[in-house]
Amino acid sequence: MVALGGGHGLAASLTALRQLTTDLTAVVTVADNGGSSGRLREEFGVLPPGDLRMALAALCGDDRWGRTWARVLQHRFDSEGDMAGHSMGNLLIVTLWELLHDHVDGLDWVAGLLGARGRVLPMALSPLDITAEVRTREPAEVVTVRGQVAVATAPGEVLSVSLVPDDAAACPEALTAIREADWVVLGPGSWFSSVVPHLLVPELCEALCSTRARVVVATNLEPHADETQGYDLADHVDVLARHAPELRVHTVLVDPGAVRDRDRLDRAAAALGARVAAHDVASDTPGVHDARKLAAAYAAVFEAN
Amino acid sequence: MVALGGGHGLAASLTALRQLTTDLTAVVTVADNGGSSGRLREEFGVLPPGDLRMALAALCGDDRWGRTWARVLQHRFDSEGDMAGHSMGNLLIVTLWELLHDHVDGLDWVAGLLGARGRVLPMALSPLDITAEVRTREPAEVVTVRGQVAVATAPGEVLSVSLVPDDAAACPEALTAIREADWVVLGPGSWFSSVVPHLLVPELCEALCSTRARVVVATNLEPHADETQGYDLADHVDVLARHAPELRVHTVLVDPGAVRDRDRLDRAAAALGARVAAHDVASDTPGVHDARKLAAAYAAVFEAN
Repeated sequence: MVALGGGHGLAASLTALRQLTTDLTAVVTVADNGGSSGRLREEFGVLPPGDLRMALAALCGDDRWGRTWARVLQHRFDSEGDMAGHSMGNLLIVTLWELLHDHVDGLDWVAGLLGARGRVLPMALSPLDITAEVRTREPAEVVTVRGQVAVATAPGEVLSVSLVPDDAAACPEALTAIREADWVVLGPGSWFSSVVPHLLVPELCEALCSTRARVVVATNLEPHADETQGYDLADHVDVLARHAPELRVHTVLVDPGAVRDRDRLDRAAAALGARVAAHDVASDTPGVHDARKLAAAYAAVFEAN
Repeated sequence: MVALGGGHGLAASLTALRQLTTDLTAVVTVADNGGSSGRLREEFGVLPPGDLRMALAALCGDDRWGRTWARVLQHRFDSEGDMAGHSMGNLLIVTLWELLHDHVDGLDWVAGLLGARGRVLPMALSPLDITAEVRTREPAEVVTVRGQVAVATAPGEVLSVSLVPDDAAACPEALTAIREADWVVLGPGSWFSSVVPHLLVPELCEALCSTRARVVVATNLEPHADETQGYDLADHVDVLARHAPELRVHTVLVDPGAVRDRDRLDRAAAALGARVAAHDVASDTPGVHDARKLAAAYAAVFEAN
């Protein structure tokens, strides 16, 4: 089973999926340029480690050892000095990359430390930038915005995104995992920052379009938030089709509370060959998936096949 | 067996002693204020972690796992940014202290990560400062210098050192280890920065003076270097007697190449109740002990008892 995404959305998905399988690979975006990740990317020219770190922590071993090292990984320094805001796990990942000179090997060592229930891979082996075409209101015009932070906070409607460079090589182990998987889960997460980028790495998109695995698209609880202001869930699905016309999807998983227009959603899903499965997956915190409910929903999707 | 010291000297001693025993505890100075340790001490108000880190790395498990994590611990960031000069292991130790709120527990977790062949403890549970009375030449006067870096680089002859505060509580586990040990090894290392400070923590000095363990003083290969300019090996031994008049020593271990005046050295040792044992312990690098030769020398001392 392979889960693609980034940030908190992917971590939520992994926390759910680890309850269902022992053969789990996470494939993570590498286009982040904010926070501790952005600073390390700038200072060392490395892949942004933050989303990789969160995915690793979500897969930590289910014992005191695994949970303690996951807390160490997630620890963020709180000071008024140089270290302020840096995440311990980001520094650990960068250290292993500097020592071992191999992205996948370095991440496998962190997974080993955590006794992780799965593997975490970057989607590509070089840091990438997101650019977006954004339609602003006043003045009403279409502008190009560059950088994940700028895209995520763009004042206006994101029309499309692309990656710079647009021909980055995918992580070979990620391609193999996608080709050999039974199920591939894309999302949830910031749609343009964490989900769509996987379709913009040519080899990765090709693997996702040609794999015999069934593809599940897991959608967000607050489809209108942040970079997708003005977007309905149907628009989220349309965005995937627009960026990867060859993509075939088995199921679009939604929370009933996030659906405004079910007919439109059904049509958008059908255009990708998918059915819509509605399951309550919301936690008490707005916008945040409940891991247990999400696991039950995934289980229902996999069993209903 | 307990080894007390700091910095590279203690690490060399531990690398030798780990070949002779499976029951090894390192007790480490916490008065450093330079480099990455000094910056972290300043930024977070924590014990300086650097010497603790080096001792832990010296005790790493003798397999690929242990050696890789020791390399991670010892990794130093090389950049032009905020992270420049920081050591990964220092940050890991600070993180564990922030998460676990317990110095010994945090160090035990790092030891667990390394599969360490022993335990590493701080000599005290609060950061300390060294002050020194230094006799300068021009003008010829006695001045007080504060801070380990300032003491180590003081332009003149260090007459004596003290700690601020001078009544710091020792680490209880260190006291227990000293009381229960068969052998205690003090040094080698920067005499005033890493060795003498152990005698200036009142409880620790009391434990060292009253333990039934036999005390070995391991001396330096370049007795005149840095903060001990103008010092003979006999002066090193005298300094211990001056700072801890009650201290009884079993053996003063010296390299023949470092001895200038054997008679004076013998008399200084005898004043502490000790005999002098001369063994070739030098490596090809000036001032650096050879771990295998040092292990053989320790073994000879322990067997000759």
